[in-house]
Amino acid sequence: MNQDYIIPNEWSIIEEGFNSEKVKSSESLFSIGNGAMGQRANFEENYSGETFQGSYIGGVYYPDKTRVGWWKNGYPEYFAKVLNAPNWIGINVLINEEKLDLNTCKEVSKFKRELNMQEGWLSRDFEAVLQNGIKIKVAAKRFLSLELDEIGAISYTITPLNSDAKITYIPYIDAGITNEDTNWDDQFWDVLKVSQNNQQSYIEARTMKTHFYTCTFMESRLFVDNKEVEVPCKSEQTSNLISCTYQQEIKENETFTIHKFGGYVVDRNHDKDALVSVAKVALDKAVSFGFDVLLEKQKESWAQIWSMSDITIEGDVKAQQGIRFNIFQLNQTYLGTDASLNIGPKGFTGEKYGGSTYWDTEAYCIPFYMATKDQAVARTLLEYRYNHLDKAIENAAKLGFTNGAALYPMVTMNGEECHNEWEITFEEIHRNGAIAFAIYNYHRFTDDYSYIPEKGLEVLIAIARFWQQRATFSSDKNKFMILGVTGPNEYENNINNNFYTNYIAKWCINYALENIEVVKTDHISDYIRIKEKVNFSDEELAKWKSVADDMYFPYSEKHNVYLQQDGFLDKELITVADLDKSQRPINQKWSWDRILRSPYIKQADTLQGFYMFEDDFSTEELERHFDFYEPYTVHESSLSPCVHSIQAAKLDRMDQAYTFYLRTSRLDLDDYNHEVEEGLHITSMAGTWMSIVEGFGGMRVQNNTLSFAPKIPKGWKAYSFKVNFRHQVITVNVSQTGTEFTLEGKESIDILVDGEQVTVSPSK
Amino acid sequence: MNQDYIIPNEWSIIEEGFNSEKVKSSESLFSIGNGAMGQRANFEENYSGETFQGSYIGGVYYPDKTRVGWWKNGYPEYFAKVLNAPNWIGINVLINEEKLDLNTCKEVSKFKRELNMQEGWLSRDFEAVLQNGIKIKVAAKRFLSLELDEIGAISYTITPLNSDAKITYIPYIDAGITNEDTNWDDQFWDVLKVSQNNQQSYIEARTMKTHFYTCTFMESRLFVDNKEVEVPCKSEQTSNLISCTYQQEIKENETFTIHKFGGYVVDRNHDKDALVSVAKVALDKAVSFGFDVLLEKQKESWAQIWSMSDITIEGDVKAQQGIRFNIFQLNQTYLGTDASLNIGPKGFTGEKYGGSTYWDTEAYCIPFYMATKDQAVARTLLEYRYNHLDKAIENAAKLGFTNGAALYPMVTMNGEECHNEWEITFEEIHRNGAIAFAIYNYHRFTDDYSYIPEKGLEVLIAIARFWQQRATFSSDKNKFMILGVTGPNEYENNINNNFYTNYIAKWCINYALENIEVVKTDHISDYIRIKEKVNFSDEELAKWKSVADDMYFPYSEKHNVYLQQDGFLDKELITVADLDKSQRPINQKWSWDRILRSPYIKQADTLQGFYMFEDDFSTEELERHFDFYEPYTVHESSLSPCVHSIQAAKLDRMDQAYTFYLRTSRLDLDDYNHEVEEGLHITSMAGTWMSIVEGFGGMRVQNNTLSFAPKIPKGWKAYSFKVNFRHQVITVNVSQTGTEFTLEGKESIDILVDGEQVTVSPSK
Repeated sequence: MNQDYIIPNEWSIIEEGFNSEKVKSSESLFSIGNGAMGQRANFEENYSGETFQGSYIGGVYYPDKTRVGWWKNGYPEYFAKVLNAPNWIGINVLINEEKLDLNTCKEVSKFKRELNMQEGWLSRDFEAVLQNGIKIKVAAKRFLSLELDEIGAISYTITPLNSDAKITYIPYIDAGITNEDTNWDDQFWDVLKVSQNNQQSYIEARTMKTHFYTCTFMESRLFVDNKEVEVPCKSEQTSNLISCTYQQEIKENETFTIHKFGGYVVDRNHDKDALVSVAKVALDKAVSFGFDVLLEKQKESWAQIWSMSDITIEGDVKAQQGIRFNIFQLNQTYLGTDASLNIGPKGFTGEKYGGSTYWDTEAYCIPFYMATKDQAVARTLLEYRYNHLDKAIENAAKLGFTNGAALYPMVTMNGEECHNEWEITFEEIHRNGAIAFAIYNYHRFTDDYSYIPEKGLEVLIAIARFWQQRATFSSDKNKFMILGVTGPNEYENNINNNFYTNYIAKWCINYALENIEVVKTDHISDYIRIKEKVNFSDEELAKWKSVADDMYFPYSEKHNVYLQQDGFLDKELITVADLDKSQRPINQKWSWDRILRSPYIKQADTLQGFYMFEDDFSTEELERHFDFYEPYTVHESSLSPCVHSIQAAKLDRMDQAYTFYLRTSRLDLDDYNHEVEEGLHITSMAGTWMSIVEGFGGMRVQNNTLSFAPKIPKGWKAYSFKVNFRHQVITVNVSQTGTEFTLEGKESIDILVDGEQVTVSPSK
Repeated sequence: MNQDYIIPNEWSIIEEGFNSEKVKSSESLFSIGNGAMGQRANFEENYSGETFQGSYIGGVYYPDKTRVGWWKNGYPEYFAKVLNAPNWIGINVLINEEKLDLNTCKEVSKFKRELNMQEGWLSRDFEAVLQNGIKIKVAAKRFLSLELDEIGAISYTITPLNSDAKITYIPYIDAGITNEDTNWDDQFWDVLKVSQNNQQSYIEARTMKTHFYTCTFMESRLFVDNKEVEVPCKSEQTSNLISCTYQQEIKENETFTIHKFGGYVVDRNHDKDALVSVAKVALDKAVSFGFDVLLEKQKESWAQIWSMSDITIEGDVKAQQGIRFNIFQLNQTYLGTDASLNIGPKGFTGEKYGGSTYWDTEAYCIPFYMATKDQAVARTLLEYRYNHLDKAIENAAKLGFTNGAALYPMVTMNGEECHNEWEITFEEIHRNGAIAFAIYNYHRFTDDYSYIPEKGLEVLIAIARFWQQRATFSSDKNKFMILGVTGPNEYENNINNNFYTNYIAKWCINYALENIEVVKTDHISDYIRIKEKVNFSDEELAKWKSVADDMYFPYSEKHNVYLQQDGFLDKELITVADLDKSQRPINQKWSWDRILRSPYIKQADTLQGFYMFEDDFSTEELERHFDFYEPYTVHESSLSPCVHSIQAAKLDRMDQAYTFYLRTSRLDLDDYNHEVEEGLHITSMAGTWMSIVEGFGGMRVQNNTLSFAPKIPKGWKAYSFKVNFRHQVITVNVSQTGTEFTLEGKESIDILVDGEQVTVSPSK
C-alpha cells in the first residue's frame, strides 16, 4: 500500500497535480472499456516519460510458444498473450512547432484527471508552459461507447493563454506497437494495408499466428471556439502508421478543439474482407451523431447499468468510491452480450497473466452478474464452459485421463489450455470444482433447473469422472488421496491432499450422483440422451461413490483443524505479523522456492472451502480455522481479502471485516500489492461486491428463500444494494438502526432476516 | 529397447544395409568429436529423407530467453541452447547432372557404416543405382583430428561401375542452419562475411546475443585413381553459403576422390578479427599433411588414449563393444585440455538439455578421468567449479541466501545458472553436495590435499553455509528439515526431506567443519587467508553443527527403510513389473503430473546415497533398501543402471549386476529409452566405466589403500582395466579363475584384495 493520491469522491476517480512517477499507475486506474475493447489511460499527445501503452481488443490474443528449454508431456502448445492492439487515440500536438510533451514542459499546473464512473468518461485538464514560453490550457475527454461498441471518441481542446499561437493537431493511428511483456524484440502484428478515404484513415492488420483480422480507424473534426471549421488535412503514412496534420492560427484565449473518433472492427463480428467498409459505416454513424450526442448516449447507458448494480455507502466516501470503482470496472470488462468473451483477470487494463478465462469467473464473477443483470448472463457464462466441454475432455485425455473425464483449462481463450506452468496447468485442478459449483450456485439462486438436464449434467459427469480417476488409493492410510496438486494457495505447489481440493472433489462426485438421480426421475428423455451419449454404468458410479466416501482429509488433532495439506505443520510457522515488513510482498521479494517452503498463504484456501460449503461446518469450526490460517495469510492474491471479509463478518468481527473490505475494494486504488502499474485486478472486484452483499448484508439462498443477516461497519451511516432474485428486484437498505427492504414489481416475496421469515411487498 | 541393428564387434560400431528409418539413430551413434568440436554422422552428400543435422562447437551457445508467460523471482535470464553450428562437411554430388541422394536412388546396396573406435574415424561405403541407371560405388571416410583440433578431414571416393560418368563434387560450407529444438523459425547466427582466397573458403559468423565469433572454413583436393588432379573450381556464394563446383569425366571403374578439409576457429582461442587468417594457417597445415598423414596421426593419438583407458572383456563381444563405445565417446567429448570446457550431457551429439555442466561431472565423470588420465585433469575439473564460486554465491544471493552461501547452478556454460525450471533450478539443490563430494573423492583417490587449503575449502564453506541456511526447523518434529526439493529422482518435485539431499547436506557440513580444523592445524597461513576472506565465526560453525546434528530423516518402521521423501508411502505402490509395458517409458507416455504422483523412480536416489556413503551403512541395510526401491525404479535416467549395477555386484547378485551393466553400457547402442535419435548420453558413460571398475572389480580407496573385490559375470572369460593410482598404473585382469595385478613403473604397491593385503611389484 503506497499511494493515497486518488482523491476520495463518491462517483469519480480523481487525481490532481502532475507526478511523472504516478503516470503508469494512473494509466491503469483510469482505464476505460466497453466490454468489446478497452485501453489504459495513456495520454493522447506524445509523452516521453515512463509509460505503459496499452489498448486491447476482446478475444484478440497471440499464442506465445511455450517450448523454451525443457518440455513436459501434456504441456500446452502456447501461452495466450493478451496483445497490445494498434493505437488509435494518439494526437500529437505542436504549439508554434514545439511538441507538447508533459515530460519536457517548463511547467505543468492545474493538472487533473477524472474518471467519471457515473457517466462513463475519462477527462484530463491541465495548463502547461512550453519551452517556447507559450502557456496553454488543455481539456481532453474521451470514452468508449457502450451504444456503438466499436467506437471511441475524444474531444481535445487547447486554449493559448498568453499569446496567439499556431496549433497543430496530428491525429494518427499506429500499428507499430509492441507488448510490454515481450521477449527480445518480437513483433505480433502484420500490417496488411494502410489507407485513406476522404477524411477517414484505416489500418488493416492481422495478428501473427492466430490471424485475427482487424481494422483500426479514425476520423476527426475541428472546431474553433466550438464552431466547426474546415481545416485542410495533410496526410502522411508509413508502412504501419497514418496521420493527418491540421494546422490553425489560434488567438489568445480562443479554443481550438479536435473531435477524434476511432476504434476497431474485427473479423469475429464481420467478414474479414469487409472490415474497411464496416469501419466506414461505424465511423459515419459516430461522426453523424457527433461527440456530444454520443456522450449523452454514454451517460444514458451507464445510468441504466447503475440503476441495477449500484451500491451506496453513506458516511464513508473512500468505501463508496471503492465499491463503485469495482462495479464500474466489472461492467467495463464484461457485459454478457458476447457469448465468446469472458472476464479476463486484468480486463482491458494490462497484459499480465494472459488468457481471458480463469476459475475466477465461476467462483467470483457469476454471483455478481447473476444478481445485478438478468440471470441469462449467468447462464451464458455457464454455457461458455459447456461449449468448451469437448476441449476439456481432450485436455484431460492429453494428461492420460480416459472415458470422457474432463479437465477444464486453468486459463483459456477458446477452450484450449494456454497456461504454461506444470504446477498450475496440470495440478491446480480444483478449478474443475468451481465450474461444477457454479452450476449448483446458478440453480440455487435462480431455481432454473432446466440448465442441468439440458447441458449441465454432462459437465458434472465429465468432472466427476476426472476426480474419480485423479484420486489414488493409499494402502498405507486405507483412504483415497489426491496427490500432487496446487490448491487455491498458489504459494504451495505439488502438495498432497490439499483440503480444499479433496473437499470439492468429494462434493463434485456427490453432486453429480445426486443430479443423475434427479434427471433420471424428472427428465427421463434427457437422461436417456445423456446416458447414451456419455455411457456411464452403475459400476462406474459405484467407483465414484467409493472415492467420495473414502476421501482422505489431513487433520491435526493438536490444533484441531483440517490441515491445508499434508506437510503444512512441518513448515517454520512464523506468522505474518512476525515477518519483517521489508520482506513483503513476498512474491516480489522472495524467490519461488523460499515462498514454497514458507507457511505463507496467498489467498483463502481451507477458508475458501469453508466459504463455499459453509453449511457443512459450524461457526466454531470456522472460527478455529480462521484463527489458525489467517495469521499466515499474506493476501497477495486479489481474491483473498473478499473471502476473509465475508468470513470475518460472519464471525461478527466487524472491524476486521471492514479492514478486509477496504483492502478488497481499494486494492488497486490504494495499490496494496505494489503492482497497480501492471493493470487492475478485475475478477476480484466481483469479490468486493460479495463482501458487501454476502458479508455485511449476509445474503444467502437457503431452500429457495433469499435470506439476510445484515450487519454494518461502525463508521458507516448506511449502505444499500439491489439484487435481482428470480426476476424480482429487491433493494436492501441497511443503516445503524435497522434494515429496509424495497421491492419492485407486483408480487410480494418471503425472505429470511436473521433467520426469521419476513414478507416484503412491492410497496415497503 | 528397440534396435539391434548395430553389429557386434570388439572395436567398431558397424551398421550394414541402408534403412532410412534408422538414419537419425545412426547419426547419433556414429557421431564423432575431438573435445573441441563434434558432429552427428550426417551424410556428406544431400539427403532428402528424415535427418537431424548437427555440428557443434565446444563452448558456443545461445541464451534462449526464458520469459515466456509467467515469471518467478530468481529465475535465470536464459536457457543455454546448444547451438547447431555452420555445416562444413557438405559435399553435393552429381552423377551426369543427377543429384546423389540415398532417399531417391533406384537401389542402394552394400551399405556399411563403421565407426572405428580404435583409430578414431567414421566410414561409409555403399553402392547405388541412380534414376539415370548409373551405378556407382561410394567410399567416404572422415575424422575430427585430435592432433589439430580445429580441423576435420573427409575422403570421399566415387567409382562408376557400369559406365563412364561425368561426376560433379560441390563441397560447400553453409551457415544457413537452424536448431532442431527451435521455436517457430528463430535464427541464431548472424553471418558476417562469406569469402574466398585461392582454394580456401570461409564464412565468418557470430552467434546472436552471445556474440561468439567463429570462422568456418574448407579447402579441397581432387584425385583420379589416387593421383592428384587439378580440376578448375567454379565458385558460388550466397549470403550464408559458399561452394566450389568441380566437374570431371570419369571412366568406368576409375576412382574420383575428393579430400575435403574443414572446421572451425573461434574467438575463445583467437582474436576475433584474425579468424580468417588463423583459419588459413590451420587449413594450410592440414592440407600440407594431407588426408593420409592426418589419419595416421589420428590413429596414433587414439592409440595413446586407449593405452591407458581401454577395458577389455573376453567372451562377450556385445559387452566389449559397449564399454569401448562408452570410453570412446567420453574421450571424444572431453580431454581435459581446455579448462573452460566441461562434459555436456549429450556431448557433441545433440541439442537436448542445453548447457554443458551438470552434477554429472562431479558424481560420475571425475572418477573416470581421475583414473584414466593424469590426476591433473580431475583437478582441472575441480578448479572449474572454484572458478565459478563467485557466480554460485551470486546465484544463491538471488534466491535470498546471504553471507557467502553458494548454490552452484544445475546447468551452466560459464558459472551462471541457465536452466529454467524452478523445480530443478531452485530445488534440485543436492547438486551442491556432489561438488563437495568430488573434492573429498579427489583427495581420497589422489592423496593430494593441497587443493583443499588452496581452493577447495572456500567452496566447502560456501556450500555448508548454503545448507545451514536452507534447512528449516520444524517445531512439530523438533528437527531440521529440508523442504521443497527435487532429489536425484527428478520424477518427484518439490518434496520434503529427500533422504539423499538431507544426507548429503549433513555430510557437507561435517566435511567442511572437519577440513576447517585440518587446514587450521596443518595450513595455518591458508587458514588465516580464508578466514579473513570469508569471515566465519565460531557461532556460525556452531549453527552449522546443530543443523547437521539434528537433521531429520524420514524412516518407515513398517518397512524398515529410510523413505525417499516424506510422502513416498502415500503413493499407489505398484511395482514396475506390474505396470503395463505399453505405459513405458513413462516420460514419453505420461503427463508430468501423473509421473509425479506415481512411485516410479527415474534413477537411484536413496541408493545413490548408499553408493556415495557406503561405509555408513551395512550390507544388510543396502540389501533392504535395494529390495524396497529397485522394484519402483524405471531407470529412465541414463545415470541409473550404473549405480544399480555397482550395488547389485556388491550384493553378489551378479546376474542382475550384469543386466544393469548391459543396460548402462549399451543404453544408446540398444536404445533402451527410445530416444537415441536425440543424441547420446555422454556423462552416464563414465558410470559404465564405474560399473566395471567399482562394480565388478570392486575397486575402492580405503585409508589410502587401493582395494579390490573382483567378481566376474558368469558369461565372461575375463576382463581387464587399468587405473592410474597416485602416478602408479596398475592393470587388473580378472578371469573366472582368479585375478592378476600388473604394475608399471619401478615401485611396488600394497593393495587390498577381498580385504587381504597384497603387495604388487612392477613385475607381476
